[in-house]
Amino acid sequence: MSLTPLRKEFPLFLKPYLPNESIRTDDRPFITLTYAQSLDSRISKGKGIRTTISHLETKTMTHYLRLHHDGILIGSGTITADNPGLNCKIDEEKIQMNSPRPIIIDPNQNWNFKDSKIEELYLKNQGKSPIVFIKENADIKYPNENVNYERLKFNKDGFNWIDIFELLSKKYQMKSIMIEGGANVINRLLMKPELIDSLIITIGSVYLGKNGVEVSPSKALKLKDVNWWKGTTDSVMCARIDSIDD
Amino acid sequence: MSLTPLRKEFPLFLKPYLPNESIRTDDRPFITLTYAQSLDSRISKGKGIRTTISHLETKTMTHYLRLHHDGILIGSGTITADNPGLNCKIDEEKIQMNSPRPIIIDPNQNWNFKDSKIEELYLKNQGKSPIVFIKENADIKYPNENVNYERLKFNKDGFNWIDIFELLSKKYQMKSIMIEGGANVINRLLMKPELIDSLIITIGSVYLGKNGVEVSPSKALKLKDVNWWKGTTDSVMCARIDSIDD
Ligand SMILES: NC(=O)c1ccc[n+]([C@@H]2O[C@H](COP(=O)([O-])OP(=O)(O)OC[C@H]3O[C@@H](n4cnc5c(N)ncnc54)[C@H](OP(=O)(O)O)[C@@H]3O)[C@@H](O)[C@H]2O)c1
Ligand SMILES: NC(=O)c1ccc[n+]([C@@H]2O[C@H](COP(=O)([O-])OP(=O)(O)OC[C@H]3O[C@@H](n4cnc5c(N)ncnc54)[C@H](OP(=O)(O)O)[C@@H]3O)[C@@H](O)[C@H]2O)c1
Repeated sequence: MSLTPLRKEFPLFLKPYLPNESIRTDDRPFITLTYAQSLDSRISKGKGIRTTISHLETKTMTHYLRLHHDGILIGSGTITADNPGLNCKIDEEKIQMNSPRPIIIDPNQNWNFKDSKIEELYLKNQGKSPIVFIKENADIKYPNENVNYERLKFNKDGFNWIDIFELLSKKYQMKSIMIEGGANVINRLLMKPELIDSLIITIGSVYLGKNGVEVSPSKALKLKDVNWWKGTTDSVMCARIDSIDD
Repeated sequence: MSLTPLRKEFPLFLKPYLPNESIRTDDRPFITLTYAQSLDSRISKGKGIRTTISHLETKTMTHYLRLHHDGILIGSGTITADNPGLNCKIDEEKIQMNSPRPIIIDPNQNWNFKDSKIEELYLKNQGKSPIVFIKENADIKYPNENVNYERLKFNKDGFNWIDIFELLSKKYQMKSIMIEGGANVINRLLMKPELIDSLIITIGSVYLGKNGVEVSPSKALKLKDVNWWKGTTDSVMCARIDSIDD
Protein backbone atom coordinates (compact mmCIF):
# COMPACT_ATOMS: atom_id res chain seq x y z
CA MET A 1 0.00 0.00 0.00
CA SER A 2 1.33 3.42 -0.85
CA LEU A 3 -0.01 6.53 0.81
CA THR A 4 -1.68 9.63 -0.61
CA PRO A 5 -0.23 13.07 0.05
CA LEU A 6 -1.19 14.21 3.56
CA ARG A 7 -4.38 16.30 3.52
CA LYS A 8 -3.20 19.80 4.23
CA GLU A 9 -5.61 20.41 7.12
CA PHE A 10 -4.20 17.57 9.24
CA PRO A 11 -1.12 19.20 10.81
CA LEU A 12 -3.16 22.06 12.25
CA PHE A 13 -6.10 19.85 13.20
CA LEU A 14 -3.91 17.28 14.97
CA LYS A 15 -1.42 19.65 16.60
CA PRO A 16 -3.22 20.14 19.93
CA TYR A 17 -3.42 16.36 20.35
CA LEU A 18 0.14 15.41 19.43
CA PRO A 19 2.76 14.53 22.04
CA ASN A 20 3.71 17.65 23.85
CA GLU A 21 6.42 17.77 26.48
CA SER A 22 4.71 20.54 28.38
CA ILE A 23 1.74 18.28 29.18
CA ARG A 24 3.78 15.49 30.75
CA THR A 25 5.99 16.42 33.65
CA ASP A 26 6.14 13.01 35.34
CA ASP A 27 8.05 9.93 34.33
CA ARG A 28 5.67 8.34 31.92
CA PRO A 29 5.38 8.92 28.18
CA PHE A 30 2.63 10.83 26.40
CA ILE A 31 -0.01 8.26 25.45
CA THR A 32 -2.18 8.53 22.32
CA LEU A 33 -4.97 6.01 21.84
CA THR A 34 -5.85 5.75 18.18
CA TYR A 35 -7.85 3.40 15.99
CA ALA A 36 -10.20 3.19 13.01
CA GLN A 37 -13.75 2.00 13.60
CA SER A 38 -16.92 1.42 11.65
CA LEU A 39 -20.16 3.25 12.49
CA ASP A 40 -21.06 0.28 14.65
CA SER A 41 -17.77 0.54 16.53
CA ARG A 42 -16.13 -2.52 15.05
CA ILE A 43 -12.42 -2.46 14.29
CA SER A 44 -12.53 -5.56 12.12
CA LYS A 45 -15.14 -7.85 10.58
CA GLY A 46 -13.84 -10.70 12.69
CA LYS A 47 -10.54 -11.63 14.29
CA GLY A 48 -8.03 -12.30 11.54
CA ILE A 49 -10.28 -10.97 8.75
CA ARG A 50 -8.51 -8.16 6.88
CA THR A 51 -11.00 -5.33 6.88
CA THR A 52 -11.00 -2.03 5.07
CA ILE A 53 -12.48 0.65 7.28
CA SER A 54 -10.76 3.87 6.40
CA HIS A 55 -10.02 5.89 3.30
CA LEU A 56 -6.44 6.22 2.10
CA GLU A 57 -6.42 9.82 3.34
CA THR A 58 -6.99 8.75 6.96
CA LYS A 59 -4.52 5.84 6.59
CA THR A 60 -2.00 8.50 5.60
CA MET A 61 -2.95 10.43 8.73
CA THR A 62 -2.08 7.35 10.81
CA HIS A 63 1.40 7.33 9.28
CA TYR A 64 1.70 11.03 10.14
CA LEU A 65 0.82 10.14 13.75
CA ARG A 66 3.44 7.39 13.73
CA LEU A 67 6.02 10.00 12.73
CA HIS A 68 5.28 11.83 15.97
CA HIS A 69 5.60 8.91 18.38
CA ASP A 70 8.62 7.01 19.72
CA GLY A 71 6.70 3.77 20.19
CA ILE A 72 3.67 2.01 18.73
CA LEU A 73 1.93 -0.53 20.95
CA ILE A 74 -0.42 -3.38 20.06
CA GLY A 75 -1.70 -6.52 21.74
CA SER A 76 -0.90 -10.13 20.96
CA GLY A 77 -4.34 -10.59 19.37
CA THR A 78 -3.60 -8.04 16.66
CA ILE A 79 -0.04 -9.09 15.94
CA THR A 80 -0.96 -12.76 15.56
CA ALA A 81 -4.12 -12.09 13.54
CA ASP A 82 -2.85 -9.34 11.23
CA ASN A 83 0.94 -9.56 11.03
CA PRO A 84 1.17 -5.74 10.71
CA GLY A 85 4.24 -3.74 9.68
CA LEU A 86 3.73 -0.75 12.03
CA ASN A 87 6.29 1.44 10.27
CA CYS A 88 5.95 5.04 9.06
CA LYS A 89 5.88 5.58 5.32
CA ILE A 90 5.27 9.33 5.30
CA ASP A 91 8.67 9.82 3.65
CA GLU A 92 9.85 6.91 1.50
CA GLU A 93 13.50 7.99 1.96
CA LYS A 94 13.44 7.92 5.76
CA ILE A 95 11.19 5.03 6.66
CA GLN A 96 13.43 3.45 9.28
CA MET A 97 14.31 6.71 10.98
CA ASN A 98 10.72 7.93 11.03
CA SER A 99 9.18 4.69 12.26
CA PRO A 100 8.16 4.26 15.89
CA ARG A 101 9.44 1.20 17.76
CA PRO A 102 6.94 -1.65 17.85
CA ILE A 103 5.87 -2.67 21.36
CA ILE A 104 4.00 -5.95 21.66
CA ILE A 105 2.00 -7.01 24.72
CA ASP A 106 2.36 -10.76 24.52
CA PRO A 107 2.22 -12.36 27.97
CA ASN A 108 1.82 -15.87 26.62
CA GLN A 109 4.41 -15.52 23.83
CA ASN A 110 2.01 -16.30 21.02
CA TRP A 111 4.01 -14.26 18.54
CA ASN A 112 7.27 -15.11 16.83
CA PHE A 113 9.31 -12.24 15.37
CA LYS A 114 10.98 -14.69 12.98
CA ASP A 115 9.38 -14.48 9.51
CA SER A 116 7.00 -11.73 10.63
CA LYS A 117 6.35 -8.54 8.68
CA ILE A 118 8.09 -6.59 11.43
CA GLU A 119 11.24 -8.70 10.95
CA GLU A 120 11.04 -8.33 7.19
CA LEU A 121 10.82 -4.54 7.43
CA TYR A 122 13.53 -4.37 10.07
CA LEU A 123 15.92 -6.42 7.93
CA LYS A 124 15.18 -4.17 4.94
CA ASN A 125 15.92 -1.09 7.10
CA GLN A 126 12.30 -0.06 6.80
CA GLY A 127 11.25 -0.39 10.40
CA LYS A 128 12.59 -0.71 13.92
CA SER A 129 13.11 -3.82 16.03
CA PRO A 130 10.42 -4.63 18.59
CA ILE A 131 10.12 -4.69 22.36
CA VAL A 132 7.97 -7.58 23.59
CA PHE A 133 6.42 -7.74 27.06
CA ILE A 134 6.21 -11.22 28.50
CA LYS A 135 5.49 -12.69 31.92
CA GLU A 136 7.93 -12.40 34.79
CA ASN A 137 9.94 -15.61 35.25
CA ALA A 138 8.94 -16.95 31.82
CA ASP A 139 11.49 -18.62 29.59
CA ILE A 140 11.88 -16.92 26.24
CA LYS A 141 10.17 -19.14 23.71
CA TYR A 142 11.52 -17.50 20.55
CA PRO A 143 14.89 -15.98 21.45
CA ASN A 144 16.15 -13.55 18.82
CA GLU A 145 18.97 -11.05 18.93
CA ASN A 146 16.80 -8.40 17.34
CA VAL A 147 14.02 -8.56 19.92
CA ASN A 148 14.09 -6.92 23.33
CA TYR A 149 12.05 -9.09 25.63
CA GLU A 150 10.89 -7.45 28.83
CA ARG A 151 9.63 -9.55 31.71
CA LEU A 152 6.95 -7.94 33.80
CA LYS A 153 4.88 -8.76 36.87
CA PHE A 154 1.60 -10.35 35.79
CA ASN A 155 -1.42 -9.77 38.04
CA LYS A 156 -4.90 -11.20 37.83
CA ASP A 157 -5.79 -8.51 35.26
CA GLY A 158 -2.54 -8.96 33.36
CA PHE A 159 0.23 -6.34 33.33
CA ASN A 160 -0.24 -2.97 34.97
CA TRP A 161 -0.21 -0.39 32.22
CA ILE A 162 1.73 1.98 34.39
CA ASP A 163 4.52 -0.62 34.75
CA ILE A 164 4.71 -0.91 30.97
CA PHE A 165 4.80 2.83 30.40
CA GLU A 166 7.34 3.51 33.16
CA LEU A 167 9.68 0.86 31.86
CA LEU A 168 9.46 2.26 28.33
CA SER A 169 10.20 5.71 29.66
CA LYS A 170 13.07 4.81 31.99
CA LYS A 171 14.82 2.06 30.07
CA TYR A 172 14.11 3.15 26.50
CA GLN A 173 13.72 6.93 26.99
CA MET A 174 10.41 6.86 25.17
CA LYS A 175 8.55 10.12 25.46
CA SER A 176 5.50 9.23 23.38
CA ILE A 177 3.61 6.05 22.56
CA MET A 178 0.67 5.52 20.27
CA ILE A 179 -1.60 2.62 20.99
CA GLU A 180 -3.22 1.19 17.89
CA GLY A 181 -5.22 -1.73 19.25
CA GLY A 182 -6.77 -4.15 19.16
CA ALA A 183 -10.10 -4.16 20.89
CA ASN A 184 -8.98 -5.83 24.09
CA VAL A 185 -6.10 -3.37 24.57
CA ILE A 186 -8.33 -0.37 23.75
CA ASN A 187 -11.19 -1.45 26.01
CA ARG A 188 -8.79 -2.02 28.90
CA LEU A 189 -7.06 1.32 28.44
CA LEU A 190 -10.28 3.29 28.14
CA MET A 191 -10.94 2.23 31.73
CA LYS A 192 -7.65 3.97 32.74
CA PRO A 193 -8.51 7.51 31.58
CA GLU A 194 -5.76 9.03 33.74
CA LEU A 195 -3.19 7.34 31.49
CA ILE A 196 -4.55 8.55 28.13
CA ASP A 197 -3.43 11.97 26.91
CA SER A 198 -5.14 12.00 23.51
CA LEU A 199 -7.79 10.07 21.68
CA ILE A 200 -7.76 10.09 17.85
CA ILE A 201 -10.49 8.00 16.27
CA THR A 202 -11.21 7.52 12.58
CA ILE A 203 -14.80 6.60 11.76
CA GLY A 204 -15.27 4.90 8.42
CA SER A 205 -18.67 5.04 6.70
CA VAL A 206 -19.40 1.35 6.87
CA TYR A 207 -21.17 -1.10 9.17
CA LEU A 208 -19.14 -4.19 10.03
CA GLY A 209 -21.96 -6.02 11.76
CA LYS A 210 -22.47 -7.68 15.10
CA ASN A 211 -19.90 -10.43 14.58
CA GLY A 212 -17.11 -7.86 14.22
CA VAL A 213 -14.45 -7.13 16.84
CA GLU A 214 -15.96 -4.43 19.01
CA VAL A 215 -14.63 -1.43 20.91
CA SER A 216 -16.85 -0.48 23.83
CA PRO A 217 -15.51 0.19 27.31
CA SER A 218 -17.14 -1.48 30.31
CA LYS A 219 -18.41 1.89 31.56
CA ALA A 220 -19.59 5.12 29.96
CA LEU A 221 -16.98 7.86 29.43
CA LYS A 222 -17.27 11.61 29.03
CA LEU A 223 -14.88 13.31 26.64
CA LYS A 224 -13.63 16.91 26.44
CA ASP A 225 -11.68 19.16 24.05
CA VAL A 226 -13.47 17.53 21.14
CA ASN A 227 -12.74 18.42 17.54
CA TRP A 228 -13.83 16.72 14.30
CA TRP A 229 -12.36 16.57 10.84
CA LYS A 230 -14.47 15.46 7.90
CA GLY A 231 -12.97 13.73 4.92
CA THR A 232 -14.16 12.14 1.71
CA THR A 233 -15.73 9.10 3.33
CA ASP A 234 -14.43 9.15 6.92
CA SER A 235 -14.46 11.50 9.84
CA VAL A 236 -11.83 11.82 12.55
CA MET A 237 -12.54 12.79 16.15
CA CYS A 238 -9.80 14.10 18.42
CA ALA A 239 -10.52 14.46 22.13
CA ARG A 240 -9.30 13.96 25.65
CA ILE A 241 -11.04 11.81 28.22
CA ASP A 242 -12.85 13.82 30.86
CA SER A 243 -14.03 11.11 33.26
CA ILE A 244 -15.71 7.78 33.76
CA ASP A 245 -19.44 8.38 33.90
CA ASP A 246 -20.78 5.91 36.47
CA MET B 1 -36.30 21.49 25.91
CA SER B 2 -36.14 24.46 23.58
CA LEU B 3 -34.12 24.32 20.41
CA THR B 4 -31.24 26.47 19.19
CA PRO B 5 -31.47 28.28 15.85
CA LEU B 6 -30.82 25.82 13.02
CA ARG B 7 -27.15 25.83 12.00
CA LYS B 8 -27.11 27.55 8.65
CA GLU B 9 -25.20 24.78 6.85
CA PHE B 10 -27.88 22.15 7.53
CA PRO B 11 -30.41 22.86 4.76
CA LEU B 12 -27.79 22.53 2.02
CA PHE B 13 -26.02 19.61 3.68
CA LEU B 14 -29.26 17.66 4.20
CA LYS B 15 -30.99 18.51 0.94
CA PRO B 16 -29.75 15.55 -1.15
CA TYR B 17 -30.97 13.16 1.57
CA LEU B 18 -34.42 14.64 2.23
CA PRO B 19 -37.61 13.07 0.84
CA ASN B 20 -37.72 13.66 -2.84
CA GLU B 21 -40.64 12.65 -4.98
CA SER B 22 -38.44 12.02 -7.97
CA ILE B 23 -36.65 9.18 -6.19
CA ARG B 24 -39.78 7.21 -5.37
CA THR B 25 -42.01 6.24 -8.25
CA ASP B 26 -43.63 3.18 -6.65
CA ASP B 27 -46.30 3.02 -4.00
CA ARG B 28 -44.24 3.20 -0.89
CA PRO B 29 -43.09 6.30 0.98
CA PHE B 30 -39.56 7.71 1.07
CA ILE B 31 -37.87 6.15 4.12
CA THR B 32 -35.22 7.95 6.19
CA LEU B 33 -33.47 6.02 8.93
CA THR B 34 -32.09 8.42 11.52
CA TYR B 35 -30.70 8.16 15.03
CA ALA B 36 -28.07 9.53 17.41
CA GLN B 37 -25.35 7.20 18.60
CA SER B 38 -22.28 7.28 20.81
CA LEU B 39 -18.81 6.47 19.45
CA ASP B 40 -19.40 2.92 20.60
CA SER B 41 -22.66 2.75 18.68
CA ARG B 42 -24.99 2.85 21.65
CA ILE B 43 -28.25 4.78 21.40
CA SER B 44 -28.86 4.79 25.14
CA LYS B 45 -27.00 3.87 28.31
CA GLY B 46 -29.57 1.20 28.99
CA LYS B 47 -33.21 0.64 28.16
CA GLY B 48 -35.27 3.29 29.88
CA ILE B 49 -32.25 5.35 30.95
CA ARG B 50 -32.56 8.91 29.60
CA THR B 51 -29.25 9.52 27.86
CA THR B 52 -27.76 12.65 26.42
CA ILE B 53 -25.84 11.83 23.26
CA SER B 54 -26.14 14.81 21.00
CA HIS B 55 -25.57 18.54 21.21
CA LEU B 56 -28.54 20.90 21.04
CA GLU B 57 -27.51 21.85 17.49
CA THR B 58 -28.01 18.27 16.22
CA LYS B 59 -31.22 17.90 18.25
CA THR B 60 -32.43 20.94 16.34
CA MET B 61 -31.43 19.21 13.12
CA THR B 62 -33.68 16.28 14.09
CA HIS B 63 -36.62 18.67 14.40
CA TYR B 64 -35.76 20.06 10.98
CA LEU B 65 -35.90 16.50 9.63
CA ARG B 66 -39.27 15.97 11.29
CA LEU B 67 -40.54 19.03 9.42
CA HIS B 68 -39.79 17.23 6.16
CA HIS B 69 -41.56 13.94 6.88
CA ASP B 70 -45.23 12.96 7.01
CA GLY B 71 -44.70 10.21 9.56
CA ILE B 72 -42.26 9.35 12.36
CA LEU B 73 -41.96 5.69 13.28
CA ILE B 74 -40.63 4.06 16.46
CA GLY B 75 -40.86 0.64 18.10
CA SER B 76 -42.72 -0.38 21.21
CA GLY B 77 -39.43 -0.60 23.14
CA THR B 78 -38.75 3.11 22.68
CA ILE B 79 -42.25 4.37 23.29
CA THR B 80 -42.64 2.40 26.52
CA ALA B 81 -39.13 3.20 27.82
CA ASP B 82 -38.92 6.89 26.86
CA ASN B 83 -42.47 8.27 26.49
CA PRO B 84 -41.28 10.60 23.68
CA GLY B 85 -43.21 13.53 22.21
CA LEU B 86 -42.11 13.12 18.56
CA ASN B 87 -43.38 16.53 17.48
CA CYS B 88 -41.59 19.23 15.49
CA LYS B 89 -40.69 22.40 17.36
CA ILE B 90 -38.80 24.17 14.59
CA ASP B 91 -41.47 26.90 14.60
CA GLU B 92 -43.21 27.45 17.96
CA GLU B 93 -46.24 28.93 16.16
CA LYS B 94 -46.87 25.95 13.93
CA ILE B 95 -45.98 22.92 16.01
CA GLN B 96 -49.07 20.86 15.24
CA MET B 97 -49.03 21.59 11.53
CA ASN B 98 -45.31 20.90 11.19
CA SER B 99 -45.25 17.70 13.23
CA PRO B 100 -45.12 14.32 11.54
CA ARG B 101 -47.68 11.71 12.53
CA PRO B 102 -46.40 9.25 15.14
CA ILE B 103 -46.40 5.62 13.99
CA ILE B 104 -45.89 3.00 16.67
CA ILE B 105 -44.96 -0.62 15.99
CA ASP B 106 -46.57 -2.31 18.95
CA PRO B 107 -47.61 -5.88 18.11
CA ASN B 108 -48.26 -6.82 21.73
CA GLN B 109 -50.01 -3.57 22.66
CA ASN B 110 -47.60 -2.66 25.42
CA TRP B 111 -48.27 1.04 24.99
CA ASN B 112 -51.29 3.06 26.09
CA PHE B 113 -51.88 6.43 24.40
CA LYS B 114 -53.86 7.59 27.46
CA ASP B 115 -51.70 9.81 29.69
CA SER B 116 -48.73 9.55 27.30
CA LYS B 117 -46.67 12.52 26.15
CA ILE B 118 -48.07 12.03 22.65
CA GLU B 119 -51.62 12.39 24.01
CA GLU B 120 -50.66 15.42 26.05
CA LEU B 121 -49.16 17.15 23.00
CA TYR B 122 -52.07 16.16 20.78
CA LEU B 123 -54.61 17.57 23.24
CA LYS B 124 -52.60 20.82 23.45
CA ASN B 125 -52.58 21.03 19.62
CA GLN B 126 -48.81 20.53 19.65
CA GLY B 127 -48.62 17.20 17.92
CA LYS B 128 -50.59 14.77 15.79
CA SER B 129 -52.53 11.67 16.82
CA PRO B 130 -50.78 8.32 16.37
CA ILE B 131 -51.19 5.27 14.18
CA VAL B 132 -50.45 2.05 16.05
CA PHE B 133 -49.69 -1.27 14.35
CA ILE B 134 -51.00 -4.29 16.20
CA LYS B 135 -51.44 -7.97 15.36
CA GLU B 136 -54.12 -9.17 12.96
CA ASN B 137 -57.18 -10.52 14.78
CA ALA B 138 -56.11 -8.93 18.08
CA ASP B 139 -58.65 -7.19 20.27
CA ILE B 140 -57.83 -3.57 20.94
CA LYS B 141 -56.59 -3.37 24.50
CA TYR B 142 -56.70 0.41 24.92
CA PRO B 143 -59.42 1.70 22.60
CA ASN B 144 -59.23 5.46 22.09
CA GLU B 145 -60.97 7.70 19.57
CA ASN B 146 -57.75 9.55 18.88
CA VAL B 147 -55.70 6.50 17.94
CA ASN B 148 -55.79 4.75 14.58
CA TYR B 149 -55.09 1.11 15.24
CA GLU B 150 -54.00 -0.90 12.23
CA ARG B 151 -54.11 -4.68 12.33
CA LEU B 152 -51.45 -6.39 10.29
CA LYS B 153 -50.37 -9.91 9.44
CA PHE B 154 -47.73 -11.07 11.91
CA ASN B 155 -45.15 -13.58 10.63
CA LYS B 156 -42.42 -15.39 12.46
CA ASP B 157 -40.20 -12.29 12.13
CA GLY B 158 -42.99 -9.93 13.05
CA PHE B 159 -44.62 -7.54 10.56
CA ASN B 160 -43.30 -7.21 7.04
CA TRP B 161 -41.93 -3.70 6.70
CA ILE B 162 -43.28 -3.46 3.20
CA ASP B 163 -46.82 -4.12 4.49
CA ILE B 164 -46.42 -1.30 6.99
CA PHE B 165 -45.10 1.16 4.42
CA GLU B 166 -47.67 0.28 1.78
CA LEU B 167 -50.52 0.71 4.20
CA LEU B 168 -49.19 4.10 5.31
CA SER B 169 -48.90 5.14 1.70
CA LYS B 170 -52.28 3.88 0.46
CA LYS B 171 -54.52 4.54 3.43
CA TYR B 172 -52.83 7.63 4.89
CA GLN B 173 -51.23 9.09 1.74
CA MET B 174 -47.90 9.30 3.50
CA LYS B 175 -45.08 10.14 1.14
CA SER B 176 -42.23 10.20 3.64
CA ILE B 177 -41.47 8.49 6.93
CA MET B 178 -38.54 8.95 9.25
CA ILE B 179 -37.59 6.09 11.47
CA GLU B 180 -36.07 7.17 14.75
CA GLY B 181 -35.48 3.88 16.55
CA GLY B 182 -34.89 2.12 18.76
CA ALA B 183 -32.14 -0.39 18.28
CA ASN B 184 -34.34 -3.35 17.43
CA VAL B 185 -36.20 -1.43 14.73
CA ILE B 186 -32.95 0.01 13.30
CA ASN B 187 -31.09 -3.31 13.27
CA ARG B 188 -34.02 -5.01 11.53
CA LEU B 189 -34.36 -2.29 8.92
CA LEU B 190 -30.66 -2.16 8.13
CA MET B 191 -31.07 -5.71 6.89
CA LYS B 192 -33.66 -4.41 4.36
CA PRO B 193 -31.42 -1.96 2.47
CA GLU B 194 -33.79 -1.87 -0.50
CA LEU B 195 -36.35 -0.11 1.71
CA ILE B 196 -34.08 2.64 3.06
CA ASP B 197 -33.69 5.77 0.97
CA SER B 198 -31.50 7.83 3.32
CA LEU B 199 -29.42 7.29 6.40
CA ILE B 200 -28.75 10.27 8.70
CA ILE B 201 -26.70 9.45 11.77
CA THR B 202 -25.55 11.79 14.51
CA ILE B 203 -22.41 10.69 16.37
CA GLY B 204 -22.00 12.21 19.79
CA SER B 205 -18.52 12.42 21.33
CA VAL B 206 -19.16 10.08 24.22
CA TYR B 207 -18.82 6.39 25.03
CA LEU B 208 -21.92 4.81 26.54
CA GLY B 209 -20.28 1.52 27.41
CA LYS B 210 -20.98 -2.11 26.74
CA ASN B 211 -24.22 -2.26 28.71
CA GLY B 212 -25.81 0.34 26.46
CA VAL B 213 -28.47 -0.37 23.82
CA GLU B 214 -26.52 -1.15 20.67
CA VAL B 215 -27.02 -0.56 16.96
CA SER B 216 -25.18 -3.10 14.84
CA PRO B 217 -26.79 -4.99 11.97
CA SER B 218 -26.41 -8.75 11.75
CA LYS B 219 -24.28 -8.40 8.61
CA ALA B 220 -21.78 -5.87 7.30
CA LEU B 221 -23.11 -3.09 5.04
CA LYS B 222 -21.45 -0.91 2.43
CA LEU B 223 -22.63 2.68 2.13
CA LYS B 224 -22.48 5.16 -0.74
CA ASP B 225 -23.06 8.88 -1.39
CA VAL B 226 -21.47 9.65 1.96
CA ASN B 227 -21.19 13.16 3.34
CA TRP B 228 -20.21 14.38 6.82
CA TRP B 229 -21.01 17.50 8.77
CA LYS B 230 -18.94 18.46 11.79
CA GLY B 231 -20.40 20.38 14.68
CA THR B 232 -19.30 21.62 18.08
CA THR B 233 -19.19 18.21 19.72
CA ASP B 234 -21.01 15.91 17.26
CA SER B 235 -20.68 14.87 13.68
CA VAL B 236 -23.46 13.87 11.30
CA MET B 237 -23.10 11.34 8.51
CA CYS B 238 -25.55 11.24 5.61
CA ALA B 239 -25.43 8.31 3.22
CA ARG B 240 -27.35 5.75 1.23
CA ILE B 241 -26.97 2.01 1.65
CA ASP B 242 -25.09 0.40 -1.17
CA SER B 243 -25.37 -3.30 -0.34
CA ILE B 244 -25.10 -6.04 2.23
CA ASP B 245 -21.49 -7.13 2.34
CA ASP B 246 -21.61 -10.89 2.94
N1 LIG C 1 -9.08 -0.89 12.99
C1 LIG C 1 -8.06 -0.73 13.79
O1 LIG C 1 -7.65 0.40 14.04
C2 LIG C 1 -7.38 -1.93 14.41
C3 LIG C 1 -6.17 -1.75 15.07
C4 LIG C 1 -5.61 -2.86 15.69
C5 LIG C 1 -6.25 -4.09 15.66
N2 LIG C 1 -7.43 -4.22 15.02
C6 LIG C 1 -8.13 -5.51 15.01
O2 LIG C 1 -8.32 -5.96 16.35
C7 LIG C 1 -8.42 -7.39 16.34
C8 LIG C 1 -7.60 -7.94 17.48
O3 LIG C 1 -8.11 -7.43 18.68
P1 LIG C 1 -8.08 -8.32 19.99
O4 LIG C 1 -8.94 -7.64 21.00
O5 LIG C 1 -8.39 -9.71 19.62
O6 LIG C 1 -6.52 -8.34 20.40
P2 LIG C 1 -5.52 -7.28 21.04
O7 LIG C 1 -6.21 -6.24 21.83
O8 LIG C 1 -4.55 -6.85 19.98
O9 LIG C 1 -4.69 -8.27 22.00
C9 LIG C 1 -5.28 -8.74 23.16
C10 LIG C 1 -4.32 -9.58 23.93
O10 LIG C 1 -3.20 -8.80 24.35
C11 LIG C 1 -2.80 -9.20 25.64
N3 LIG C 1 -3.02 -8.07 26.55
C12 LIG C 1 -3.67 -6.92 26.34
N4 LIG C 1 -3.62 -6.12 27.41
C13 LIG C 1 -2.89 -6.77 28.33
C14 LIG C 1 -2.47 -6.46 29.65
N5 LIG C 1 -2.76 -5.30 30.26
N6 LIG C 1 -1.73 -7.39 30.30
C15 LIG C 1 -1.42 -8.55 29.72
N7 LIG C 1 -1.79 -8.90 28.49
C16 LIG C 1 -2.51 -8.01 27.80
C17 LIG C 1 -3.65 -10.39 26.01
O11 LIG C 1 -2.96 -11.53 25.51
P3 LIG C 1 -3.27 -13.04 26.00
O12 LIG C 1 -4.55 -13.43 25.36
O13 LIG C 1 -2.10 -13.83 25.49
O14 LIG C 1 -3.36 -12.99 27.50
C18 LIG C 1 -4.90 -10.13 25.21
O15 LIG C 1 -5.70 -11.26 24.96
C19 LIG C 1 -7.91 -7.86 14.99
O16 LIG C 1 -9.01 -8.34 14.24
C20 LIG C 1 -7.34 -6.60 14.35
O17 LIG C 1 -7.54 -6.56 12.97
C21 LIG C 1 -7.99 -3.17 14.37
N1 LIG D 1 -30.49 7.79 20.41
C1 LIG D 1 -31.53 7.62 19.60
O1 LIG D 1 -31.55 8.19 18.48
C2 LIG D 1 -32.68 6.75 20.01
C3 LIG D 1 -33.86 6.76 19.28
C4 LIG D 1 -34.87 5.89 19.64
C5 LIG D 1 -34.71 5.04 20.71
N2 LIG D 1 -33.56 5.05 21.43
C6 LIG D 1 -33.37 4.11 22.55
O2 LIG D 1 -33.59 2.79 22.13
C7 LIG D 1 -34.01 2.01 23.24
C8 LIG D 1 -35.14 1.12 22.82
O3 LIG D 1 -34.71 0.28 21.79
P1 LIG D 1 -35.28 -1.21 21.67
O4 LIG D 1 -34.44 -1.92 20.71
O5 LIG D 1 -35.42 -1.74 23.04
O6 LIG D 1 -36.79 -0.98 21.16
P2 LIG D 1 -37.48 -0.56 19.78
O7 LIG D 1 -36.60 -0.85 18.62
O8 LIG D 1 -38.01 0.82 19.92
O9 LIG D 1 -38.73 -1.53 19.79
C9 LIG D 1 -38.55 -2.90 19.56
C10 LIG D 1 -39.88 -3.60 19.58
O10 LIG D 1 -40.70 -3.10 18.52
C11 LIG D 1 -41.44 -4.17 17.96
N3 LIG D 1 -41.02 -4.37 16.57
C12 LIG D 1 -39.96 -3.83 15.94
N4 LIG D 1 -39.92 -4.21 14.67
C13 LIG D 1 -40.99 -5.01 14.47
C14 LIG D 1 -41.51 -5.72 13.35
N5 LIG D 1 -40.94 -5.69 12.14
N6 LIG D 1 -42.62 -6.48 13.54
C15 LIG D 1 -43.21 -6.53 14.74
N7 LIG D 1 -42.77 -5.88 15.83
C16 LIG D 1 -41.68 -5.13 15.69
C17 LIG D 1 -41.14 -5.40 18.81
O11 LIG D 1 -42.10 -5.38 19.87
P3 LIG D 1 -42.47 -6.65 20.79
O12 LIG D 1 -41.29 -6.81 21.73
O13 LIG D 1 -43.70 -6.27 21.50
O14 LIG D 1 -42.60 -7.82 19.87
C18 LIG D 1 -39.76 -5.08 19.33
O15 LIG D 1 -39.38 -5.75 20.50
C19 LIG D 1 -34.40 2.98 24.33
O16 LIG D 1 -33.42 2.92 25.37
C20 LIG D 1 -34.37 4.33 23.65
O17 LIG D 1 -33.93 5.35 24.51
C21 LIG D 1 -32.55 5.91 21.10
